Amino acid sequence: MNTPTRLSGVFSPVITPFAQDLSPDPARLIRHCQWLLSQDVGLAVFGTNSEANSMSVAEKMKLLDLLAQAGIPGARMMPGTGACALTDAVELTRHAVGHGAGGALMLPPFYYKGVSDDGLFASYAEVIERVADPRLRIYLYHIPQVSNVPISLALIERLLKAYPGVIAGIKDSSGNWENTKAMLDRFQPQGFDVFAGSESFLLANMRGGGVGCITATGNVNPGPIAKLYRTWQQPDADAQQAALDAVRAIFQSLPMIPALKAAAAHFGGDAGFAAVRPPLVALNAQQKTELMAALAAQGFSMPGWSDSK
Amino acid sequence: MNTPTRLSGVFSPVITPFAQDLSPDPARLIRHCQWLLSQDVGLAVFGTNSEANSMSVAEKMKLLDLLAQAGIPGARMMPGTGACALTDAVELTRHAVGHGAGGALMLPPFYYKGVSDDGLFASYAEVIERVADPRLRIYLYHIPQVSNVPISLALIERLLKAYPGVIAGIKDSSGNWENTKAMLDRFQPQGFDVFAGSESFLLANMRGGGVGCITATGNVNPGPIAKLYRTWQQPDADAQQAALDAVRAIFQSLPMIPALKAAAAHFGGDAGFAAVRPPLVALNAQQKTELMAALAAQGFSMPGWSDSK
Repeated sequence: MNTPTRLSGVFSPVITPFAQDLSPDPARLIRHCQWLLSQDVGLAVFGTNSEANSMSVAEKMKLLDLLAQAGIPGARMMPGTGACALTDAVELTRHAVGHGAGGALMLPPFYYKGVSDDGLFASYAEVIERVADPRLRIYLYHIPQVSNVPISLALIERLLKAYPGVIAGIKDSSGNWENTKAMLDRFQPQGFDVFAGSESFLLANMRGGGVGCITATGNVNPGPIAKLYRTWQQPDADAQQAALDAVRAIFQSLPMIPALKAAAAHFGGDAGFAAVRPPLVALNAQQKTELMAALAAQGFSMPGWSDSK
Repeated sequence: MNTPTRLSGVFSPVITPFAQDLSPDPARLIRHCQWLLSQDVGLAVFGTNSEANSMSVAEKMKLLDLLAQAGIPGARMMPGTGACALTDAVELTRHAVGHGAGGALMLPPFYYKGVSDDGLFASYAEVIERVADPRLRIYLYHIPQVSNVPISLALIERLLKAYPGVIAGIKDSSGNWENTKAMLDRFQPQGFDVFAGSESFLLANMRGGGVGCITATGNVNPGPIAKLYRTWQQPDADAQQAALDAVRAIFQSLPMIPALKAAAAHFGGDAGFAAVRPPLVALNAQQKTELMAALAAQGFSMPGWSDSK
């Protein structure tokens, strides 16, 4: 078995299209993944913005099977495989590794709050020991404002020591640059790859020695984000960052996931793409109008997206 | 099909024993359920204190099958069937109803935070419409300090109006008596049955017109809690409540679930009962010693528990 190359660059937590009956829609998902790859953006399928936790384990495994069958390369995928239930996390992670995924993005178990680092260490350790596959590369997923279960620097240190090579990096979605900086300073030199949790920190993360970002807005603005990743050492990098920030601000002014799906629906001429699973709610007509007006004012588009159908 | 009788009384979120390999242990679970029933305590299997969210859907369904096979009556069960994933909640709820469960205790989907009442309404509505079984009785589960997704009075009002009879009541684990009181005043007269989230509020809840409590410490102190439920109109009710509070305070001074399991292990002479799944951690030796000393000082015991093996 080959050890996969370390992941780097821009990844997107791929939004998951749903059919009218709210079942996952593999055809639309495959098309979206292919477009993202064409824009040089990797696939963090089953992330927060994928509504991954609104889907069952079986639904996610089936989608991953279909993506593989469609020729989406595992090496460009970092599926989310963390779960509340130990057995779910093991099953999802094993399945992702079996498909040759370049990494697994792992939330901690997130139901119980105030759990100890001992308990979180044991959670990750059990998954690693049970999956028991030399190809496994875990990216920790720190998103305390949603999971309410933070991943501390002390926990990272302990995991890195126990499972060097397997603990491959982190997505820091805290939005707290001091935290990202601390990870870059302490762990990146040990080969622990730090992804910023959005493109807002992409330039800062690259300047700090990080390896890229994993970002919701990668779903709709992939080309320009990937360009900044490739050219962050160019003189216009700050101007590029400012342009990315302006687009992101528009999506952040609305519920993010419904807004991403509304944009994908609008620019793809495919209204069905806007569907979300409860507890999320699709944008209402006024929100959609506001979104499209703001995007138009920025001259925003999704090049090649409508042709990809 | 018969419509089940409305549930009332004392229920316990039944602690789930695990084998050495952390798989659920049905033999120990059945024994514990039988003992709880012998103490007049009903079975809210798959609650927070059951580590339900640390188990997969398949593990929970299998356990429920085995409980039914062991003769545990569905009418005495209120399984937890809420889940982050719509499809999981539907599958678990349908399965529980299929086993004749007297009710289903449903967490809202709890991954996404700050979701709207529209989204939560849609979540419950989808489950109800998909299960589509006249026997379905849903008890909402309000435990904002863990789920971080509160169930508002406005949401209850809306659900009750849309699904009268199906929306059967609530477990209020907020620990906020004002909230429980508001539910009792506004909704109990409409046949929406309010269970206090612990025995701390059992007497107050009964005096306010509620129907009982669902409580973690029901796992270890079932007889005295059930007695207060039966005799809450007797002159010694306040003294009974004080005695229950004293026992509960001991368990609350430690991590609750590991402490419950440690007590069950100790009084049952069955060390294996203490196992928990990550991210929880079993009590350490010092915590165990403290717990047993405090319980001994109260003259606490679990009558009949060691004989139930």
